[in-house]
Amino acid sequence: MNVFVIGIGLIGGSMVKDIKAFHPEAVIYGIDTNEKHIEQALAIQLIDKKASYEDLSIADIVIVSVPVDVTLSVLPKVLDVVNDDTIVLDAGSTKVLICNTVALHPRRRNYLACHPIAGTEFSGPAAAINGLFDGKTNIICEVEKTAFKLQEKALAIFQELGMRIRYMNPVAHDKHIAYVSHLSHISSFMLGKTVIEKEQNERDIFDMAGSGFESTVRLAKSSPAMWTPIFKQNKENVIETLEEYIQNLEAFKKMIKEDDYDGIFQQMNSTNRIKEILNGIPINKK
Amino acid sequence: MNVFVIGIGLIGGSMVKDIKAFHPEAVIYGIDTNEKHIEQALAIQLIDKKASYEDLSIADIVIVSVPVDVTLSVLPKVLDVVNDDTIVLDAGSTKVLICNTVALHPRRRNYLACHPIAGTEFSGPAAAINGLFDGKTNIICEVEKTAFKLQEKALAIFQELGMRIRYMNPVAHDKHIAYVSHLSHISSFMLGKTVIEKEQNERDIFDMAGSGFESTVRLAKSSPAMWTPIFKQNKENVIETLEEYIQNLEAFKKMIKEDDYDGIFQQMNSTNRIKEILNGIPINKK
Repeated sequence: MNVFVIGIGLIGGSMVKDIKAFHPEAVIYGIDTNEKHIEQALAIQLIDKKASYEDLSIADIVIVSVPVDVTLSVLPKVLDVVNDDTIVLDAGSTKVLICNTVALHPRRRNYLACHPIAGTEFSGPAAAINGLFDGKTNIICEVEKTAFKLQEKALAIFQELGMRIRYMNPVAHDKHIAYVSHLSHISSFMLGKTVIEKEQNERDIFDMAGSGFESTVRLAKSSPAMWTPIFKQNKENVIETLEEYIQNLEAFKKMIKEDDYDGIFQQMNSTNRIKEILNGIPINKK
Repeated sequence: MNVFVIGIGLIGGSMVKDIKAFHPEAVIYGIDTNEKHIEQALAIQLIDKKASYEDLSIADIVIVSVPVDVTLSVLPKVLDVVNDDTIVLDAGSTKVLICNTVALHPRRRNYLACHPIAGTEFSGPAAAINGLFDGKTNIICEVEKTAFKLQEKALAIFQELGMRIRYMNPVAHDKHIAYVSHLSHISSFMLGKTVIEKEQNERDIFDMAGSGFESTVRLAKSSPAMWTPIFKQNKENVIETLEEYIQNLEAFKKMIKEDDYDGIFQQMNSTNRIKEILNGIPINKK
């Protein structure tokens, strides 16, 4: 089995690492514009060979795991050269623009639009780990546009990786993911910014920070190269979530200003039900 | 050694659990207005005996670990009845009002104003765990107002618990803790609220949430009874941090609206330095 990974970082790297574990005979080919990442991936045996787009004709599986703006140009190029039996996956955090971009491609049936909800705040080949996808959700969009036997091929891999599959249309995906993922990243980045700005001349202050602060700003370690094009592609949804979030913060501030502590208590109390919701998140079921 | 804990929850409970581990001969007395918590604490042997304020005359150590509004009334009552050699500690997340409340108390020298920066999002006696304070920072305010030999007694305990000590005045404490703790809690509660409101009729959507969402909303599980009086006592500082946070969110939204993706990239990139800052947080050094 010839597995190609385009963009050898946390997501693509972790995926081929698991595939190699289940299929020791598989040959992992890596394509990356970053020569250092290629070297690093070869050195840690994340990939077996460096490859180029011309080699894709021998591919059984192609994993496109690059920033979502790059996916827009890479994906059609990949579909141009793969053969009839190749399944091409992506892992992008947006789906509308990517699906639209290849909607009319003659090999649209070779592509399966995926969003595995998994990751850490780290990036690059060294961030790849085994088991990253175990127990996680993989959202598949427009499944009906992918050739049935290629769907099966992909699903067999996802099953080995331990993923739960959910099917959704790209518009619904982009709308809801703005709430449960994109907004979290902005809230975390801006929290980090606010505190760094304020405390920049008082480094010792961070000794006062505990695990709560760490938890809320963890996502502010994420890669700007990956996240900037996500916010660009999901602009309208992201702006909507941000507006609602800011409104809630303003309302909370107003209650504090007006000494409405009953109101504050009630809001926090009703939001406490996030406990039950979080218990339902797959990641916690492990 | 007679150790009294007033308010037998996560903080007080974890503290006496560790003290008992280092001093098996210690007798742990519990005072709580919540009779169920007393029963639970006795059942799991977190405390040895139920006690009342009259018993405090035999106390060697008193740990006041109740919500900060309750501390304002409990602390003077405790100081009224303890003996000369009793050290009284609190663990409140605000310090100005608490310190001011007992500033003129005849037994002010028996009190050490503390804020151990430790916790989880859980509460109640069952949430108490060993080692909660190991490697964490304990902020002590107005140390000069506490009798020297009682400081020593407290510091010996803190050393056993593995805490790093930092000294700070109450005004500086309340100002900085608003940034590195109180703001995180509000950001998390309002993020939870925003998402719950939007997705309340679509429970399946939370299947899309991953570890990133979980991390940013973790603090929204926190106790409203504990947090409402903290926001009340630290009102001015909390409003200031909230205003700066909202301004940053508004500016980020504006950049997305105006397609200023270079600006977005730059902001996230410079906030990435939170990585190094977080590496400096004691909790990560373990």
